[in-house]
Amino acid sequence: MAQLPLDDSVDIPDDPAGSSSGSDRDVALLKELAAHMLGERDHMLGFPVNLDFDYRPLADFLQVHGNNVGSPAKNSEYGLHSRVFEQAVVSFFGRLAGLEDAFGYVTSGGTESNLYGCYLGRERFPEAVLYASQATHYSLRKIARLLRMDFVAVQVGDDGSMDLAGLRRHHSAHRGRPAVVVATIGTTTGGAEDDLVGIREALADEGTDEVHIHSDAAFGGLIAALSPEPRPWAFESGADTVALSGHKMLGAPLPCGVALARPEHVTAIHRPDVAVGSDDDTITGSRDAFTPLLLWYELRRLGRTGLARRVTHCLETAAYAEQRLREEGHHPERAPGSNTVLFDAPAPELCTRWNLLTVGDRAHLIAMPHVTGEHIDRLCADLRT
Amino acid sequence: MAQLPLDDSVDIPDDPAGSSSGSDRDVALLKELAAHMLGERDHMLGFPVNLDFDYRPLADFLQVHGNNVGSPAKNSEYGLHSRVFEQAVVSFFGRLAGLEDAFGYVTSGGTESNLYGCYLGRERFPEAVLYASQATHYSLRKIARLLRMDFVAVQVGDDGSMDLAGLRRHHSAHRGRPAVVVATIGTTTGGAEDDLVGIREALADEGTDEVHIHSDAAFGGLIAALSPEPRPWAFESGADTVALSGHKMLGAPLPCGVALARPEHVTAIHRPDVAVGSDDDTITGSRDAFTPLLLWYELRRLGRTGLARRVTHCLETAAYAEQRLREEGHHPERAPGSNTVLFDAPAPELCTRWNLLTVGDRAHLIAMPHVTGEHIDRLCADLRT
Repeated sequence: MAQLPLDDSVDIPDDPAGSSSGSDRDVALLKELAAHMLGERDHMLGFPVNLDFDYRPLADFLQVHGNNVGSPAKNSEYGLHSRVFEQAVVSFFGRLAGLEDAFGYVTSGGTESNLYGCYLGRERFPEAVLYASQATHYSLRKIARLLRMDFVAVQVGDDGSMDLAGLRRHHSAHRGRPAVVVATIGTTTGGAEDDLVGIREALADEGTDEVHIHSDAAFGGLIAALSPEPRPWAFESGADTVALSGHKMLGAPLPCGVALARPEHVTAIHRPDVAVGSDDDTITGSRDAFTPLLLWYELRRLGRTGLARRVTHCLETAAYAEQRLREEGHHPERAPGSNTVLFDAPAPELCTRWNLLTVGDRAHLIAMPHVTGEHIDRLCADLRT
Repeated sequence: MAQLPLDDSVDIPDDPAGSSSGSDRDVALLKELAAHMLGERDHMLGFPVNLDFDYRPLADFLQVHGNNVGSPAKNSEYGLHSRVFEQAVVSFFGRLAGLEDAFGYVTSGGTESNLYGCYLGRERFPEAVLYASQATHYSLRKIARLLRMDFVAVQVGDDGSMDLAGLRRHHSAHRGRPAVVVATIGTTTGGAEDDLVGIREALADEGTDEVHIHSDAAFGGLIAALSPEPRPWAFESGADTVALSGHKMLGAPLPCGVALARPEHVTAIHRPDVAVGSDDDTITGSRDAFTPLLLWYELRRLGRTGLARRVTHCLETAAYAEQRLREEGHHPERAPGSNTVLFDAPAPELCTRWNLLTVGDRAHLIAMPHVTGEHIDRLCADLRT
C-alpha cells in the first residue's frame, strides 16, 4: 500500500494558534486516512488480520476513560470499567479452549499473552528451559530474553511443526531441568500446528514431568477449534496456558488478545490488594476496558456458530485459491485445514499491490474473513499480466 | 460508582439465533453503559485520569485494523499504520522531555513504559540492582520479578520522595554492582517527585557510575514540565529513559503511554528485520495504530500552550480545594506544585460517591482537567451534611 500523501506537516506545534494545526483540518485528514485504509481491504491478501468488522456503533466510548485496572476477577476502586463483559469474553474462549473456569483477561495482543503464559510457566518452574520451534513467532526470543530464560529453538519437520525427536535430543542435554514449551498452533509461515500431547509425551520419555505447555494459538486457535474437523490446540490436549488473538480471526481496530490459564497457575504471581483496591495478577495493571466491549459485541453477534461459519468461509476461500493458483501454474501448497496458501512469489510490485509477504521465493496468501473468491480471481488476473 | 444494573445476561451464546443476544439490544445496552460512565464525570475526584475529551470524530477508525508492528522508526510490510503520527507524538514529548531525538513509542500504558525503561537499563547493566522508593507504583515490584532483577525499596522522606541517604546506605551493601534506579515523578499517593540529579550524585558518592535512571513520570511528568515553575523530571536532569502516560493529564478512552529512551540505549535490544519486514525494538511487537492518532489529534488541538493552560487549571483547582477544605476543617495538605490534596477521609459512602481513594484515614482528591471549582463546592456541601 502506498501511504497517504501528506501535503501538510503533521508536526505538533507548541502553540496551535496561527499554525496549520486545527481540529477541522485534522479531522478531515484523519478521515481521509481512515478511508484510505478501508480501501486497502480490497487488496489485503497477505496478513493474518480480519478487516471485516465495524465497531462504529460503540463510538460513545471514545469520550470516556474506562479502565479494568487490576485483576479481571475482582473489582477495583475505579468504577468505570467493563469487567463483566471481559469476563463473558474470557468465559466464551475458556469454554472453546476446553476449560470452563479458565482464568483469563484481554491483553494488548499476542506478545503480552505469550509473555503471560511463559511468565506463569517460569514461576512454576524457575529453572526451566524455554523451548519453541524454529517457526515460532519472533516475540518468543524477546520474551525469553525479558524473562531471563535459556531458550532453545527446536527444528521443524517437513510439515512445519516442531520435530519431537529434535525436542527430545535438545532436552537430553538439559536432563534434570524442567521445561516450558511453547506449542505454536498455526505458524505465521504456513499454518503448521505443533503436537501438544506429543510434546508432553516426548519430555516424559526423557524423564521430565515438570513441564508447562503454553499454546500460542494466536493465529490458529480458532481455526483448529472451529474447523469442520476440529484439531487439538488447548487445555483439552494438556495446555497449561493459551494465547489467543482478538484482531486476527475475530477482528478489532487495534491489536488485542486473550490470555488464558489454569487458575492454579496464577496463584504464584497473585498479589492481593495492591492495584487500586483490586489484586494484581496480570502483566499490564491498568487495563483497557474498551477492547473487551468490542470483542463482546462481536462475539454476541456471531456466537460460536457464526465464528464456525467464518472459519469455514476462510478454508473454502483458501481451497479455492489453491485450486485457482494451481490452474494458473503458480505451484500452491497448503497444510491440511489451514487458511494459508504458499505459492511462487510474483513480481515485487504485485506483492506490494496485494500486500503479500514473501519468504525466499514464495509468497503467502492468507484467506482471512474479508477475503473472497472475487479477490482470488482478481489476483489471478493480475498474475497473468 | 454503582455499576450499571444488568437485567439481561451478558453471556455469549453458542448460537445467537433465538437468544437474547443481538446487535440492536446490545448496542442499546452499551450506549447506556457509556452514558452511565460519562455521567460519572460529575463525581470523579479521586483518580489521576482526565475525563475531559471527545474522540468521537475519529470513529471511522473503528472499522479498520491499523497496526504499527515493529519498530516505530521503520515501516513494516503491513501498510495500514499510523507511524508518521506516532513519530509526531514521540517527537513532541521528546522535546518536552529535553531530548529532541529521543527514541520512543506509544505503549499500552505506564506498566509497559516502565518495563521498557527497566529492561533497557538491565540490558545495559545485567548485574544491576533495581532501586525505587517505597512510594513507587505497584508495577515496579512486578517488573523486577519479570526481569529477574534484585529489587530494593528505598524509604521516603517526610515529603514522600526517595531518601537519598537511604539509597546510599542500601547501595553500600551492593557496592561494585551497577544500579538501575526508578525515579518517581509524581507518586500516586501525594504527588512527590524524586530528585534525579541527587540520585546520580548519591550513587557517584558510593563509587558507582554504572547507573541507569528511569523516570517514571506517568503521573507527574507533564505537571513538572508545564507548571508555571517547571521542575526537573526527564532527560535534561539525567534520565536515561522516561515513562509518560497518555490517559492521565492528556486523556484517552483506554490506558496508554509513551516510552522514551536515549537512542543509544535501544541498540542492545534492537533486532533487525524480524517483525513483518520491520525491526523489533519494542515490548509489544504488533502495536496499536489507533491510540497514536488519538494522542496526535488531542496534542495538535492543545499544543504545548494548551497543555500548560490545562496544568495551570489543575493546580488552581487543587489550590482552591486546599483552601476550601481548610475552611471547612478537613486538614488538607498538598505538596508544592502538586494537584493532589490529602484530607481527612469522610464517611465511606461519600468516598464512594466522589470516587475518593483512601489510604489509612486520609482521602485523596486529584484535580484532573475535568475537575472544576464547582465540583469542589459540591463536595464541600456534601461533607457538611
